[in-house]
Amino acid sequence: MAREFSISRRVQFAESDMAGVVHFSNYFRWMEEVEHAFFRAVGLSIAMHHEGREIAWPRVAVECEFFGPVRFEDEVQLRLRVMKVGEKSFTYEVDFMKAEHQVALGKVTSVCCTTQPQGGFTAIAIPSEIKEKLAAGPG
Amino acid sequence: MAREFSISRRVQFAESDMAGVVHFSNYFRWMEEVEHAFFRAVGLSIAMHHEGREIAWPRVAVECEFFGPVRFEDEVQLRLRVMKVGEKSFTYEVDFMKAEHQVALGKVTSVCCTTQPQGGFTAIAIPSEIKEKLAAGPG
Amino acid sequence: MAREFSISRRVQFAESDMAGVVHFSNYFRWMEEVEHAFFRAVGLSIAMHHEGREIAWPRVAVECEFFGPVRFEDEVQLRLRVMKVGEKSFTYEVDFMKAEHQVALGKVTSVCCTTQPQGGFTAIAIPSEIKEKLAAGPG
Amino acid sequence: MAREFSISRRVQFAESDMAGVVHFSNYFRWMEEVEHAFFRAVGLSIAMHHEGREIAWPRVAVECEFFGPVRFEDEVQLRLRVMKVGEKSFTYEVDFMKAEHQVALGKVTSVCCTTQPQGGFTAIAIPSEIKEKLAAGPG
Repeated sequence: MAREFSISRRVQFAESDMAGVVHFSNYFRWMEEVEHAFFRAVGLSIAMHHEGREIAWPRVAVECEFFGPVRFEDEVQLRLRVMKVGEKSFTYEVDFMKAEHQVALGKVTSVCCTTQPQGGFTAIAIPSEIKEKLAAGPG
Repeated sequence: MAREFSISRRVQFAESDMAGVVHFSNYFRWMEEVEHAFFRAVGLSIAMHHEGREIAWPRVAVECEFFGPVRFEDEVQLRLRVMKVGEKSFTYEVDFMKAEHQVALGKVTSVCCTTQPQGGFTAIAIPSEIKEKLAAGPG
Repeated sequence: MAREFSISRRVQFAESDMAGVVHFSNYFRWMEEVEHAFFRAVGLSIAMHHEGREIAWPRVAVECEFFGPVRFEDEVQLRLRVMKVGEKSFTYEVDFMKAEHQVALGKVTSVCCTTQPQGGFTAIAIPSEIKEKLAAGPG
Repeated sequence: MAREFSISRRVQFAESDMAGVVHFSNYFRWMEEVEHAFFRAVGLSIAMHHEGREIAWPRVAVECEFFGPVRFEDEVQLRLRVMKVGEKSFTYEVDFMKAEHQVALGKVTSVCCTTQPQGGFTAIAIPSEIKEKLAAGPG
């Protein structure tokens, strides 16, 4: 079982703010980037259908702790670690690494939902083949 | 006929970059903010239906010239000026004013479209009641 | 003592994502918007100097729980509640309200720092006149 | 002389909007990403010093035409083409390619500046070694 997965990412200029460091809201966009790369690595997509229904994963709780700044042109490694594949929910943590130092730690919990024609979300049990792929991780 | 329309907007911290000024990509988001406020002011919404079809306004050409920097907590006035309500397209300019000095000039051309179930866009003639409201401007 | 403070804010198109709702990273930008409005309301700015030193407030821990979606053109009220003005840190929560229903709850802890010429941050005790204003809240 | 340069980039979820396509403001962020990658490829950085002065490149004019939509998880190739390395300004175009179809064409003109301690910009002649590298392109 390989439930860890990582990508590297260079910090872009537009992600910095006037304090000269990456704006903290971007850490959540980066967590999503490694999450979606993880989904692709296990043969899924965050935007998929299952038995004719459109699946979505709205977030129910997210958090991040910051240990040191990240700046323009830094190379940051994002290490995703699956924490729980529940009945309806999926939880992972991300270690943000800069040259082997951890600069942040994030956590995201999403709920598996189908979308309604009018735009709402209904929580469902994670379909078993999706659940297995998330739990198994990339080959 | 009042085809000019303006809103004021305070610059937010997350819109700044490490050069200490507003990142230039945000000027396009601001143009969209005053455009949508203009739509509301004439009784429309950018996200609307017409005769059962969903209307969208994808952009076909946008530009912006920058005359001076804008910074965190500056108050910027966005003055929208309708330039053309064509058969299928809508063009406006925006003067970006900071304390009565023009700091930027932008221009946006969008095309009226219906959206396809699979997600594509098909250009249509602007429905006449929408056209009239865009051309007349806010009462 | 009035340690609560709120602003209202209309959801912008660029803040939505392909799921048709506001992207969750934007909730952190909104928390910062009400935080900075709060600073202004008590006579401070997030970008200020104190005794010749530049003050910055890097975030050390942030989190958000989501109870329901927010969409384009929704009017959202952001209610900031000061939780703690510590020796070096400042913590607040934000209730996200849509038509009197709470749609999210966020929390931010920042540390008062001076910035170094080379760009680093050094935590300092919050200067007493800043501390008093944060603790007292708007008039 | 190799004055063309390209990178590939996968579209991220947070770059989409409720119309299901990439928000147009992001095209300008992508142009900047390939621009900065080009700077690195020729041995420069957008955030550099020259003879003790900090160099910045504020934009004076930008534009983009859109020929077709780009969606989540699309792979987009960004082809930068140097158009002019002037006395003080630098102009490039970017072809946005999706599976060999051009989906957009952008253009950016920046001016070489030194930054003032108080935060302003002063246009300068592009230092000759920078000019040569921009004009020569990646080896």
